[in-house]
Amino acid sequence: MTRIFNEETPAIHERIGWVQTVSLNPPTLQDNTADADRLRFALQKSLNADWVDIDFSVLKKLPFALREWGFSVRCILAEEKGRWIVTGILNPHGNVTAAGVAVDLGTSRVVLRLLNLLTGDILLEDAMDNPQLAVGPDILSRIHACDRNEGLARLNHLIVEGVNRRIDRMTDFCGLTAKDIYLMAVSGNTCMTHLFLNLSPRWMIREPYIPVINRPGLQQAASLGIAINPAARILVLPNIGSYFGGDLLAGILCAGMGQSEETHMLVDVGTNAEVVLGNQNWLIACAGAAGPALEGGVTQMGMMAGPGVIDQVTVDGESGVLQVHTIDEKAPVGICGSGLIDLAAGLFLAGMVDVRGKFVPAACGDRLVQSAGIANFEIVPADDSGTGKAIRISQADMDSLLRSKAAMYTILETIMTTVNVSWKELTTFYVAGTFGAFIRPAAAVSIGMLPDLPREKFISLGNSSLQGATRVLTDRNSLQEIDHIREKITYIELNVNQEFMNRFSAAKFLPHTNRTLFPSVRVL
Amino acid sequence: MTRIFNEETPAIHERIGWVQTVSLNPPTLQDNTADADRLRFALQKSLNADWVDIDFSVLKKLPFALREWGFSVRCILAEEKGRWIVTGILNPHGNVTAAGVAVDLGTSRVVLRLLNLLTGDILLEDAMDNPQLAVGPDILSRIHACDRNEGLARLNHLIVEGVNRRIDRMTDFCGLTAKDIYLMAVSGNTCMTHLFLNLSPRWMIREPYIPVINRPGLQQAASLGIAINPAARILVLPNIGSYFGGDLLAGILCAGMGQSEETHMLVDVGTNAEVVLGNQNWLIACAGAAGPALEGGVTQMGMMAGPGVIDQVTVDGESGVLQVHTIDEKAPVGICGSGLIDLAAGLFLAGMVDVRGKFVPAACGDRLVQSAGIANFEIVPADDSGTGKAIRISQADMDSLLRSKAAMYTILETIMTTVNVSWKELTTFYVAGTFGAFIRPAAAVSIGMLPDLPREKFISLGNSSLQGATRVLTDRNSLQEIDHIREKITYIELNVNQEFMNRFSAAKFLPHTNRTLFPSVRVL
Repeated sequence: MTRIFNEETPAIHERIGWVQTVSLNPPTLQDNTADADRLRFALQKSLNADWVDIDFSVLKKLPFALREWGFSVRCILAEEKGRWIVTGILNPHGNVTAAGVAVDLGTSRVVLRLLNLLTGDILLEDAMDNPQLAVGPDILSRIHACDRNEGLARLNHLIVEGVNRRIDRMTDFCGLTAKDIYLMAVSGNTCMTHLFLNLSPRWMIREPYIPVINRPGLQQAASLGIAINPAARILVLPNIGSYFGGDLLAGILCAGMGQSEETHMLVDVGTNAEVVLGNQNWLIACAGAAGPALEGGVTQMGMMAGPGVIDQVTVDGESGVLQVHTIDEKAPVGICGSGLIDLAAGLFLAGMVDVRGKFVPAACGDRLVQSAGIANFEIVPADDSGTGKAIRISQADMDSLLRSKAAMYTILETIMTTVNVSWKELTTFYVAGTFGAFIRPAAAVSIGMLPDLPREKFISLGNSSLQGATRVLTDRNSLQEIDHIREKITYIELNVNQEFMNRFSAAKFLPHTNRTLFPSVRVL
Repeated sequence: MTRIFNEETPAIHERIGWVQTVSLNPPTLQDNTADADRLRFALQKSLNADWVDIDFSVLKKLPFALREWGFSVRCILAEEKGRWIVTGILNPHGNVTAAGVAVDLGTSRVVLRLLNLLTGDILLEDAMDNPQLAVGPDILSRIHACDRNEGLARLNHLIVEGVNRRIDRMTDFCGLTAKDIYLMAVSGNTCMTHLFLNLSPRWMIREPYIPVINRPGLQQAASLGIAINPAARILVLPNIGSYFGGDLLAGILCAGMGQSEETHMLVDVGTNAEVVLGNQNWLIACAGAAGPALEGGVTQMGMMAGPGVIDQVTVDGESGVLQVHTIDEKAPVGICGSGLIDLAAGLFLAGMVDVRGKFVPAACGDRLVQSAGIANFEIVPADDSGTGKAIRISQADMDSLLRSKAAMYTILETIMTTVNVSWKELTTFYVAGTFGAFIRPAAAVSIGMLPDLPREKFISLGNSSLQGATRVLTDRNSLQEIDHIREKITYIELNVNQEFMNRFSAAKFLPHTNRTLFPSVRVL
């Protein structure tokens, strides 16, 4: 867990937050409306809302609280489609905190953030491996697990209990209780949010690929088994479809694309490759699960990061000497996607890999080892490795990487061509997603995975899924913005036709068959 | 329990009921929106609604149901302020019933009605004494009981468990289960609905007399502890204030006063006396709990009805012979309000009671017995009584009855004077409430309790509270009508000033000091 002090704290005012203090005129014989209706009218006025509901649990204590607190009350709110609800009330003269939790529900990793709903201060951050990994490593295996007896129930139970345990730990650490949490925002891909909601993802992978729900909206914590305040509402960010989840909407929200006059591209390089292109007037999206051409393509690069995993590699152009950096600076045990891209870029620029991605024996020297008829490049010798075995990358791995990067570039190129936008029209190229956060754009450009734009145009959004969920908790207007984004987005299916396959073939070279597309990439 | 066959069955169509069948286009690659959103859009269109929610329990089974039923689905709905919710789905090709329950939550008696939400057919009716009688006989004693430890919890538990048991019995009898009930409408006075909702009525009897809530709206059955379908919604009819409950709104709804061009009066003679006067343009209401002048006034007439209780009395003007009718025609054990009014009217018209309500010894003869210095009139001799003791009414009882009837008439007269409407302008005089259902208008007019109008203008609404709740279950437009009534009503506090007390004094005679107000009443 990480205690966060005043970092990334958004400015929060009653005007935009979920906490609203109202002072009511005490009732008289002439003004004798009921307590709840008195509060409702006051909030409707202050929120300019047609209707404000009051959660049943609040009704029970409202008359006592109003009289104890002098008819002034701090209300914790939630909203959906203009319909507001009071989920909790606090003494405005007291110092009791109302907390919120933002959750990035990743397929591999779940990150939680506890924050103060009154001030917007982030109190604590915590993360865990998605406990559903025990059932299946990826989306597909988990969806198939749902077809087995009680599979969905088990997957749901794993994530709900996992989240509950982390929330307990976090609130404990901050001197709060889980009951102090009145609002939760959850961002994830469509499968993860379905499993979290205990809804069957079965038809998401069967033509015509239909999720149960696109806009889950507000749900009561109690009905989802989340052990926070039972009246708390949980907002699950909406998705666009089976292959385009709320995590990506969160990214678009964080990048501000829906409100920009200029045109931007956003790529989420997670388990899948999801791309959004556009501005305040139009947004085009597509996801990379585009048929057999890409199967095992983009996805295979997303190896799990963890302590000792190599995430950065530099190759000295002159000497061919490798320098590696590992997560937590532990002895190396393997290599993850960003490390692989660094490695491929370094080897290519040093002439140790050719334009077809093949190891060049003369340049690689001792590092190239033949094993079972396949060339293996030794990244870390056995002596320096944390496992006692050498860490190697085979020619097959390199071939696979080339297919992946080619698939990525082809998707980007296709979407640009489809809407007739050229690379130089892009103001920003946002890279989102956990994996994306670690990619060095220069390396990705060197191997032709990302387009050859000025490096300053690449902006990593970090964990934009978590940031988007955080935004929802600190800025109530963001819900409307998410709805606007949803309405504006056109989701296009990638048409894997001959033209696409031609582009794909051309992209399977380093950096590309058409070198003029990558003028900045210069091999030594 | 009473099995009801095709009696009082309102015509119900999908257009006005709570069940709506929709056929969806099956999803395709080109039309691949999520199941829930597909259903939502279809319902929004067919209901002309801005937003349709789907209960979480429905979401869970929706994808399976849609595919099994060929994308056609029968939806059970609820609505509040234009916001709809699907609380259940049924196979449109099957013959599964969705049921509803209407409840009249009386202080003394609770009546339940089970009906088929698809057809509007009333399946069964059942009644019970309000189990809260074990704590206190009337509103005041129950509110005071709430101040004791766990008093509210106990009162709530009593009524919730009582209702649950009756519902179980009723559904069993009809071959249904409680889970088949998707909608419930509850009508009662403000205190009874508060106790049902587990909300404190404490401040209703303390100046300035504030209830917790006026518009409880829809609540989830599960959150109220009502053991029907957990997704079912319970609509508690709104109230106007502490002394003007949803039961009376139900009466106004049933009388159709809010939609009539002509002016009507409605009097609910229950535990309290509540009066409404008006038409489609205006409605004036007041309740009879108007200060010390009336304390123990109107209320004392409302004695409990039960087997053996005398509910009708006729007095032969010539012979002075009494004939009594008892409930269930059992041997007499006591006398209730309607019997008392009959008795007083009969004795007065026969000259056995004078204009001041005093027994006339010469006319009463043997029936008048002195006991502890007070005259007692023997209604039933010991030999004919079901208790072995004579059933008597004392001069004190008669004095109390005169105060009660005077209070009632004074309230009616005051409200008429306040809005400057004369008796002959009234088209109908509706008598509502359990007690009111048994009053013979002729007798009530004879003692000057009700105004001297042509007898055909008096219409008894019977249990209009139950009928109003039934209407809510069979006609979804009635909710809007109830809201309109609420908005139109002006609630006036009776001003117990010198003028009121003068009127009250004048009304304490039989039928009234001013005999010209009761031209039809002729003493033998």
